[in-house]
Amino acid sequence: MSQRFVFVISDRTGITAEALGHSLLSQFPTVNFKTETLPFVDNELKAAKVVERINQINEEQGIKPLIFATLVDDDIREIIASCNGVFFDLFDTFVGPLESALGIDSSHSVGQSHGVTNLNEYVARISAVNYSMATDDGVEVDHYQAADMIAIGVSRSGKTPTCLYLSLHYGVMAANYPLTEDDLKLGQLPPALTDHKDKLFGLTIEPFRLQQIRQERYNRESYASAKQCQWEVAQAEALFRKHKLPFINTTQMSIEEIGTTIMHKAGLKRKI
Amino acid sequence: MSQRFVFVISDRTGITAEALGHSLLSQFPTVNFKTETLPFVDNELKAAKVVERINQINEEQGIKPLIFATLVDDDIREIIASCNGVFFDLFDTFVGPLESALGIDSSHSVGQSHGVTNLNEYVARISAVNYSMATDDGVEVDHYQAADMIAIGVSRSGKTPTCLYLSLHYGVMAANYPLTEDDLKLGQLPPALTDHKDKLFGLTIEPFRLQQIRQERYNRESYASAKQCQWEVAQAEALFRKHKLPFINTTQMSIEEIGTTIMHKAGLKRKI
Repeated sequence: MSQRFVFVISDRTGITAEALGHSLLSQFPTVNFKTETLPFVDNELKAAKVVERINQINEEQGIKPLIFATLVDDDIREIIASCNGVFFDLFDTFVGPLESALGIDSSHSVGQSHGVTNLNEYVARISAVNYSMATDDGVEVDHYQAADMIAIGVSRSGKTPTCLYLSLHYGVMAANYPLTEDDLKLGQLPPALTDHKDKLFGLTIEPFRLQQIRQERYNRESYASAKQCQWEVAQAEALFRKHKLPFINTTQMSIEEIGTTIMHKAGLKRKI
Repeated sequence: MSQRFVFVISDRTGITAEALGHSLLSQFPTVNFKTETLPFVDNELKAAKVVERINQINEEQGIKPLIFATLVDDDIREIIASCNGVFFDLFDTFVGPLESALGIDSSHSVGQSHGVTNLNEYVARISAVNYSMATDDGVEVDHYQAADMIAIGVSRSGKTPTCLYLSLHYGVMAANYPLTEDDLKLGQLPPALTDHKDKLFGLTIEPFRLQQIRQERYNRESYASAKQCQWEVAQAEALFRKHKLPFINTTQMSIEEIGTTIMHKAGLKRKI
């Protein structure tokens, strides 16, 4: 099947346009999209070059590329909108209606969204990232007093990326502690965790998926066998239930989904 | 000034709706918005409860809350749209025009966007995160062969969160190496870096900002003094110029902007 070109165009990072564009395109799973993101299109010269590129693709393919844009500047937007593509204005579409709803004009200023706002937020974010790194994988358990949450689960259940996502995205102090074979054999919470039960959040995963992940990188029989994965997961889940800990099954979830779900279920407050 | 309530509503994580909503609201800096995100509104019962909450706020405040929604299911969307709020449909607004442009119907399926797609991508992402953690702060320089990029800069210039963002968000193998006082005194690239010059990317920062960040957490005179910060930054920038390394000034940038800019300027390919 021939490809349908998609251009994501932004005057800043393009992160938002990319996410919404991806979300929209995922509603058309039978089309073979080829997406190109063009961030920082913030002057008329760059905009003209983008139009040239789009028009070239249109000529080569004989079909109009799709354009997803978040552009604040009217002049730049007009240049892009003049291209031979199908233009979807993900941002400006809503600015007019918002002005009506609020009864005031918009500021038409670029780059408020992902810019640094203040030092305190920046420092909170960095502190959270440093905390998550320092307390990764059961290290520095003496610092659990400062934790907002402590993720627990078997090895390769997704604890580390989840905690980093929580700290980077929300400024949450997220530690993680691995449930080892020894912990699971005892069937008890490790001593380092017993004083922090209200902060614990369990991650579990289908044993089959766990085995796939473990085999992908660490093909040790004792670690990546079906039997071992099944046993570890069953023991971990029994422990979560015994202590009435909240837990989620991460098998079908992306890191973003795991992170957002934990924020939601644990009632954590974002700090940035 | 009284607050204007904003509800961000999604059947999945709400990350995209939150980002676009934030971006739109930042165009109205004089309004005091109070935003509440309601993720995982994925059945009619939950939708009805959300409507109840919105209507209650409307009654208490005497002014309609703003609703930013990304909802795929028509029934759920209709319930939410029936509330006493100003409804902005960030998703469905574009689905009809996209169907026209593509000449096919959308699948109307929920949660394609941030879901796990395949094992390879998941593993690539986790490997990149593990790599960034293992090579943080100049550790494991023997593994630079595997790096896609190596961030260098003075202490507290933003290297660690940038590398974690690159690995989490793009699956890029991002290492970082701190330029220490000793390195800067010699005015030469540290030996660990000389074989990997094409992967180096410099981060710099205004000395005043650097001082603020250092003082915030580590108030040691020798480290956080204006003089020391000025000297370190000047030396680091001289080193970047001497070796013609690409570098950016991160002072006014968020982690998202730094990450996206590096992807763009270094021509890195996303792996997820």
